[in-house]
Amino acid sequence: MKLDAEIALAHRLADAAREAIRPHFRTPLTAERKGDASPVTVADRAAEEAMRRILTAEVPQDGVHGEEFGVSEGRSGRKWVLDPIDGTTAFLAGRATFGTLIALLVDGFPVLGLIDQPIQSERWLGVMGQPTTLNGMPVRVRPCRELGDAALATTGPHYFSQEEGDVFMALAAKTDHKRMIMGGDCYNYALLATGCLDVVCEAGLKLHDFAALVPVVEGAGGLMCDWNGEPLHAGSAGDVLALGDPARLDDVLEAMGGQSHDHDHSGHDHSHP
Amino acid sequence: MKLDAEIALAHRLADAAREAIRPHFRTPLTAERKGDASPVTVADRAAEEAMRRILTAEVPQDGVHGEEFGVSEGRSGRKWVLDPIDGTTAFLAGRATFGTLIALLVDGFPVLGLIDQPIQSERWLGVMGQPTTLNGMPVRVRPCRELGDAALATTGPHYFSQEEGDVFMALAAKTDHKRMIMGGDCYNYALLATGCLDVVCEAGLKLHDFAALVPVVEGAGGLMCDWNGEPLHAGSAGDVLALGDPARLDDVLEAMGGQSHDHDHSGHDHSHP
Repeated sequence: MKLDAEIALAHRLADAAREAIRPHFRTPLTAERKGDASPVTVADRAAEEAMRRILTAEVPQDGVHGEEFGVSEGRSGRKWVLDPIDGTTAFLAGRATFGTLIALLVDGFPVLGLIDQPIQSERWLGVMGQPTTLNGMPVRVRPCRELGDAALATTGPHYFSQEEGDVFMALAAKTDHKRMIMGGDCYNYALLATGCLDVVCEAGLKLHDFAALVPVVEGAGGLMCDWNGEPLHAGSAGDVLALGDPARLDDVLEAMGGQSHDHDHSGHDHSHP
Repeated sequence: MKLDAEIALAHRLADAAREAIRPHFRTPLTAERKGDASPVTVADRAAEEAMRRILTAEVPQDGVHGEEFGVSEGRSGRKWVLDPIDGTTAFLAGRATFGTLIALLVDGFPVLGLIDQPIQSERWLGVMGQPTTLNGMPVRVRPCRELGDAALATTGPHYFSQEEGDVFMALAAKTDHKRMIMGGDCYNYALLATGCLDVVCEAGLKLHDFAALVPVVEGAGGLMCDWNGEPLHAGSAGDVLALGDPARLDDVLEAMGGQSHDHDHSGHDHSHP
């Protein structure tokens, strides 16, 4: 898929978000509460507004789905999905592991994803059919021969329900306990795509949380799916797995108490049966 | 306490550790296992060796207590406590939130502490009786008027025993659940000293994990103590609390199920009864 213009646009969006976010890092901020009580700051809003201004001016025919300002439907079959600050809690804590997430969905499937860390000036770009890059240099997942050697990450157990937490713990018990790492939000997926982590497991993510991650992880040779091993799309429930080594999928699903199936995740075919 | 020479020496140690660590960040590393199964890499060892070489050459009369190469007793009543990479798991995951920890103990109490983040080039320095600095600029804790507004951090629940986890959860229930953050290792204490977090709670830390944190947190106006509210020293069990606002100590101890006492944490008097 040829997406040169869209890639250039995604970079401009991320540049605008960086500019909006950086002045607020480690400054005293009031964290307001959204409907789900999760925190939001002036930086989240300013970054999304900056990106929406560019989209409205340049691609008015495309839909926009942003975390803070909702959905505007388009008429092109394309939708830009924006999370100005994924990891607002980390941002508020002064930890430079949050990210701006930008995804382009075509017919509901993410074909372009960008993860930007504004403070460390790190930008991961994934485009369907192209190798994922970090600041322009290709990155690649690492192999994981045994699930028992896997480094597992999740943002925190307090984001799981009791039942989800039990499933996560069953998975954790089969991985390398001493290398399990908490925190991280979207940054974990970027690090998995860079060959530094093996499995990320989270529940209850929204479209704006996971859409950008899919092309980044898959373009680096990894696999993203839901907790049943199915591909992620605009209608997914948001229980998300990322694997650096796709060959470990059955081991992961089995550890989580599901059935072991034959999964066809060859190539980047999202039209999984 | 006048410690100009010791401060200059601590900077040289941190510079040497940075140089030893940086080339290994996000490279494929073999994580060996120590006696407690925690990971250690060639970078941990190289950084501690580089620091020990400097100490042996410049202050042979001082003791050295390093995470990787043990204790050499000195004859000066002074001891340098080194953790070349606090947060080896984060280091291995490619997350720039680990730190090199350097402390100077006099008669068992930490009087100088340094937290260095080699990748982000961030260095916090705390010296008894002086304001804590980040890259030479003073930093300061923030007030926390109500425990219910507190942002609480811990590296991960998997580092707690069942009983410790129950105590932590009792504390977490009294803080702002939506701002609780996991991961972070020593970096959480540095961020608390910078006014970005309110409470850090961990268990089972060793002397090399916590010695450097005390002068950093206290020089920024915060408080560090054990889970009974007692000051930390070379003999402490390693159940550690850091508070950005010392006025919340009784609230924190009460939430953790202990007794509410009168604590005299005025000034920097570590000779707490």
